[in-house]
Amino acid sequence: MAETVNRAPSNAKLETVTFGPDRPLSLDCGVALTPFTIAYNTYGELNAEKSNAVLVCHALTGDQHVANTHPATGKPGWWDLMVGPGKPIDTDRFFVICPNVIGGCQGTTGPESINPATGKAYGLDFPVITIADMVRAQTHLVDHLGIDSLFCVAGGSMGGMQALQWASAYPERVFSAIPLATAARHSAQNIAFHEVGRQAIQADPDWHGGAYYDHGTRPMKGLAVARMAAHITYMSESSLFQKFDRNLQDREQITYGFGPDFQIESYLRHQGFTFVDRFDANSYLYITRAMDYFDLAAEHDGSLAGAFKNTKTRFCIVSFTSDWHYPTSYNKQIVHALNAAAANVSFVEIASDKGHDAFLLNEPEMFATLSGFINSAAAQRGLK
Amino acid sequence: MAETVNRAPSNAKLETVTFGPDRPLSLDCGVALTPFTIAYNTYGELNAEKSNAVLVCHALTGDQHVANTHPATGKPGWWDLMVGPGKPIDTDRFFVICPNVIGGCQGTTGPESINPATGKAYGLDFPVITIADMVRAQTHLVDHLGIDSLFCVAGGSMGGMQALQWASAYPERVFSAIPLATAARHSAQNIAFHEVGRQAIQADPDWHGGAYYDHGTRPMKGLAVARMAAHITYMSESSLFQKFDRNLQDREQITYGFGPDFQIESYLRHQGFTFVDRFDANSYLYITRAMDYFDLAAEHDGSLAGAFKNTKTRFCIVSFTSDWHYPTSYNKQIVHALNAAAANVSFVEIASDKGHDAFLLNEPEMFATLSGFINSAAAQRGLK
Repeated sequence: MAETVNRAPSNAKLETVTFGPDRPLSLDCGVALTPFTIAYNTYGELNAEKSNAVLVCHALTGDQHVANTHPATGKPGWWDLMVGPGKPIDTDRFFVICPNVIGGCQGTTGPESINPATGKAYGLDFPVITIADMVRAQTHLVDHLGIDSLFCVAGGSMGGMQALQWASAYPERVFSAIPLATAARHSAQNIAFHEVGRQAIQADPDWHGGAYYDHGTRPMKGLAVARMAAHITYMSESSLFQKFDRNLQDREQITYGFGPDFQIESYLRHQGFTFVDRFDANSYLYITRAMDYFDLAAEHDGSLAGAFKNTKTRFCIVSFTSDWHYPTSYNKQIVHALNAAAANVSFVEIASDKGHDAFLLNEPEMFATLSGFINSAAAQRGLK
Repeated sequence: MAETVNRAPSNAKLETVTFGPDRPLSLDCGVALTPFTIAYNTYGELNAEKSNAVLVCHALTGDQHVANTHPATGKPGWWDLMVGPGKPIDTDRFFVICPNVIGGCQGTTGPESINPATGKAYGLDFPVITIADMVRAQTHLVDHLGIDSLFCVAGGSMGGMQALQWASAYPERVFSAIPLATAARHSAQNIAFHEVGRQAIQADPDWHGGAYYDHGTRPMKGLAVARMAAHITYMSESSLFQKFDRNLQDREQITYGFGPDFQIESYLRHQGFTFVDRFDANSYLYITRAMDYFDLAAEHDGSLAGAFKNTKTRFCIVSFTSDWHYPTSYNKQIVHALNAAAANVSFVEIASDKGHDAFLLNEPEMFATLSGFINSAAAQRGLK
């Protein structure tokens, strides 16, 4: 019914779980991280068979607040168009879990967490993590919830990387996977933009070699610049043109100065300076690094198909025509590998001018595609 | 003969000219700048009719050293593939002039020049300039050289903007124009990337509100970040892939750290930190602003065709398939306007995977196109 589509899930639960020395997190870098905490939200009810769990993985600057009002910003969940009652990931049918990634800054252990060895924030003493580490941490959470097999792992951008990693590393635990607007390997251009952001943060004297927590400072200007540069890559040239073109900001003519004459300048500054209120600069370093290191084929002798050998997981891959950050060609590499592995895969390229961020926005064809895929997979799983 | 193609022009002259209070530069912002100096290089000989002069306009980070070894870096001129004896812009036939733009930092008056009103460097007291101001300053130089009509005005990127501005504002003084890889209006995405660079510079505490000359500092880190971000836009995704892909820098495996594990990171850092040795951060602010303000149609009631009404100038417009900074679509807007103005225009889109920087690189089709155009125009002009 139409009137139920937009109601917020009333069954949201905001939780944390801490894993002690008996359950350390074995990281790719060789460190065993302990203790570690995962902050996560759930929506809906786990059925008696524990077969209706959907794990939603967030992107670089996302968090666990996928479908509830964000406690810090007061804004709607970052994917509340997708997750909620009557929505494609229907919280009336599915038990939805969304954890903050390891290395994050919304309650899961990351560089601003206290290092038990020193009693101070980790800073750069936090071990460098990978997408595989993020997923390994999530297996602890899924175990904790008593779930053997996830009905679905879904996410866009870095969330899509996690979905791919889940399906590759734990194929028997992933009934279906929905990686959107993503890549199986970070490209030179992707790494380049991330490096610019990291250099901007590290150039800020308030960064203090990552130990700013001890100095009562935060590298806000550097982080804002990093966010501004990244934000441009999330939008298409066409959407920037349509939204801003050369429109002036609260003025009739150019001022011959360096203020925000143009709306696009004002918008970018706003994006940069609101971001620093909700994000930790070191988390930005660590999470971008994890993405840069992501190269799923490299772990399988250079064969991406090898990463999905004998998989029984059902895949739905979605790309967007105007996404130049993770363009269709990157997504098609995944599809080709899945085809080579004889996997069950649907692929849709959706015509959109909204760029990479399209996966977060109101794209009816995406909703229809995912609803169809999820309903079909649910039927195969015997879910109502 | 092949062996002559690569000899450097032996007739390079490095000059400066200062225009005093009797010849102030009237800027678009309303300020009359005086005195002002133009540093420029010439190559070749002006003929008796003064009809063989080619004005080469440089891009954002270029300078007057188009075809001679750069006195500071020791590197070849930035366009020595194009300009020199036997090259498309043949210094054995033409008198080539290349001035440093107003607002620049290689000898032409700019923000690091001494403000006669204070006896100190201008810094942000330097007036904000436009592409039209750059061209207006160049008319002083061309007058000084006794040249009524330029045989050709050529340039890529911001140099192309100057070529368009010359042809629009002084049509009777421009026999032919070669704008390459350029735009008649800076787009929202173009402005966005520039704004990121400016924010990075202004975030650097060594910038001191632009008065760093007085503090014995230079905002090197901020300028390096600005350069890194911009540099990504000058290359195509494909060229970054082919040149760097995910290759590691002097190491066998990733280090789980924030050093330059990847070649692309090392390359970008090198680009950033060598740039600051040769460029003034405030000049970067001023010149990017001039580009942002460029909108040739806006000066003609929104009609780009109106900017070229009744033009007799011959145009050769060149774009590159992989240039996403000033893509073919931007260049075609110019072509369409010139067509609407019934101008004499050639347009070539050159297949290249080198991105925006292709216009600076070894692109044989570009050389062939420009040689053909220049030879034809020279014949029409009665030049040998």
